[in-house]
Amino acid sequence: MKIICLQENLKNNLNIVQNIIGKNLTLPILNNLLLESDNGRLRISSTNLEIGINTWTSGKIEREGAITCPAKILFNFVNNLPNKKIELEAKNNILTVKCENYKASIKGLSADDFPIIPKIKNDPIFEINNLCLKEALMKVSGCAAVSESRPEISGVFFSLNKEGLKLAATDSFRLAEKTEKMEKIKQDHSMILPQRTAQELIRILGEKEGVMKVILGSNQVLFESGEIQIISRLIDGQYPDYRQIVPQNFITQTLLNKEEFLNAVRIAGFFSSKVNNVKFSIQAGKMEILSQDPDLGENKTQIQAEVKGKEMEIEFNYRYLLDGLNNISAKQIFMGFSSESTAAVIKSAENDDYLYVVMPIKIS
Amino acid sequence: MKIICLQENLKNNLNIVQNIIGKNLTLPILNNLLLESDNGRLRISSTNLEIGINTWTSGKIEREGAITCPAKILFNFVNNLPNKKIELEAKNNILTVKCENYKASIKGLSADDFPIIPKIKNDPIFEINNLCLKEALMKVSGCAAVSESRPEISGVFFSLNKEGLKLAATDSFRLAEKTEKMEKIKQDHSMILPQRTAQELIRILGEKEGVMKVILGSNQVLFESGEIQIISRLIDGQYPDYRQIVPQNFITQTLLNKEEFLNAVRIAGFFSSKVNNVKFSIQAGKMEILSQDPDLGENKTQIQAEVKGKEMEIEFNYRYLLDGLNNISAKQIFMGFSSESTAAVIKSAENDDYLYVVMPIKIS
Repeated sequence: MKIICLQENLKNNLNIVQNIIGKNLTLPILNNLLLESDNGRLRISSTNLEIGINTWTSGKIEREGAITCPAKILFNFVNNLPNKKIELEAKNNILTVKCENYKASIKGLSADDFPIIPKIKNDPIFEINNLCLKEALMKVSGCAAVSESRPEISGVFFSLNKEGLKLAATDSFRLAEKTEKMEKIKQDHSMILPQRTAQELIRILGEKEGVMKVILGSNQVLFESGEIQIISRLIDGQYPDYRQIVPQNFITQTLLNKEEFLNAVRIAGFFSSKVNNVKFSIQAGKMEILSQDPDLGENKTQIQAEVKGKEMEIEFNYRYLLDGLNNISAKQIFMGFSSESTAAVIKSAENDDYLYVVMPIKIS
Repeated sequence: MKIICLQENLKNNLNIVQNIIGKNLTLPILNNLLLESDNGRLRISSTNLEIGINTWTSGKIEREGAITCPAKILFNFVNNLPNKKIELEAKNNILTVKCENYKASIKGLSADDFPIIPKIKNDPIFEINNLCLKEALMKVSGCAAVSESRPEISGVFFSLNKEGLKLAATDSFRLAEKTEKMEKIKQDHSMILPQRTAQELIRILGEKEGVMKVILGSNQVLFESGEIQIISRLIDGQYPDYRQIVPQNFITQTLLNKEEFLNAVRIAGFFSSKVNNVKFSIQAGKMEILSQDPDLGENKTQIQAEVKGKEMEIEFNYRYLLDGLNNISAKQIFMGFSSESTAAVIKSAENDDYLYVVMPIKIS
């Protein structure tokens, strides 16, 4: 293989593929990237056996061929080269990289031993603007369960129907749901995307404009945008019918200034005890936020609130509230309560695109 | 004690004092700050028994008195308050802090048990612009020995004579020296400042303009600037006569573009083996930088150099070179070699204010 390409293009694509590669001692080829000439372009691929990534870089193919080489050293080297032409040449499992006065010879492994990244040939089930997808993933993925004891909630749930696309995640203590309106959806679909893939998509999407095609395979999904493909396994199982825990009727409804509320919750967190509990007392025209730690002391903040319905006291884990509030960019938020012991809803006062549902801490 | 002051002033001063406080389980009062009315101002003090810090905040003293309270919770609380008037009131070892609709009661300890921060009453041995001191400390302190096996080189050496002030630090593998010209120095002085104090000074000096007075006690030093005092113990012992290892005559002298050299060394580092060794081959008009790792591969970069004297090959720990080069802001640097097995000197091609001396790795 002998290929000439531009440093900037190569650097960008190496940055996309390299992140999923860890340090694999039992299967050293998983530390490597596959570089291969592919119809007049250079294809670079990586895999951790759960996620596979392909990118294509334009360049001049002087000799067809393929090699694999350690991801980290190639990425570091190319990253520090000037933005000039780079010559990549593979011979006897050594990749030689030349750029102006810089030269490196990197020990590789045969391309024949690189794991096959599956191909999915179906039609896209939907297309979505890259930045919309990134934002939606950022707003929900933090709620997915960290433990794998219930694998079906350890990922982000995508459900597609004629109203559009809903992304949801929950760890059973709180739930986030983001809705993207979509037209021309022909068929309902759903899938559970592993949290790791969601994180990788967020990273790769960065500030990249464009459109992502989402193509569903039997137990895999392909995200394709321009010259990037991300192929991931899906989580097997039935996602819980989370809609049934989202309260529809409220005994108490409040409208709050988001920044004021966020700051009060943040401050209350400093004084909260080990279970992170903070008490909210909702009264006519105001909310009091109280927290107490037997060793440190206590804290009380009062904020203005438009309150409808009955007065109440309820406790939440302040960290869950912060997570939700940080995902809402509205000036004013709605917070609705159905009882002292059932889930509350937080959302923008203006729209329902993003719902955050949080369980209270039961006061014994 | 009852004092009213502005949030911003209080926040800034809490930020200055709180950083030296760790989590002390055996002596809980060391987790606390001392707040005390002091001639119409609020004095806040902290100590870790090695470093003590005093700051003064202007405000309205409504009742004299003192209290200590945990640093972290007070800092976090005040940091998140609006920039308005804050009322601090101490009663029965509880500090109540009020600001608009926010209120906290923090459990404190009696001020009587707070360790005494020593006072030093001498005249300053010198004064220095804060940003000059910060820059000088930043450029040398990283070279101080990390281990305490030779305590005398685990700090920054200050030496003052009629030429000015020199700051130096070494871990016996490399040495950095920064010179500040000064006039009106009446008497020679020297001291070894602990690395931790140097780091704390760098942090506190931040972008703070003004002048620092340096006042020497018997085994302590006081840095005083405006309403801030930092009192530190000094390291006992004789600092090595480092001037004798700084080579004065060179068999090979080179002038190099700093950025090119820095980048070549950085890249060589990726390919260097476990002892971080990189080989430098100096020839007429050029320098070759070579590194090799038996598992990864090898790298060669060639850069232009003005070379005087004989050709030579020498190896260095690339990390030590990066540290030194990153501290020099010149476009062109001088690197002088006295032999393959003795220290080399790196400095700006234009001046001698900053010297970086590095020992080679002996080629066996």
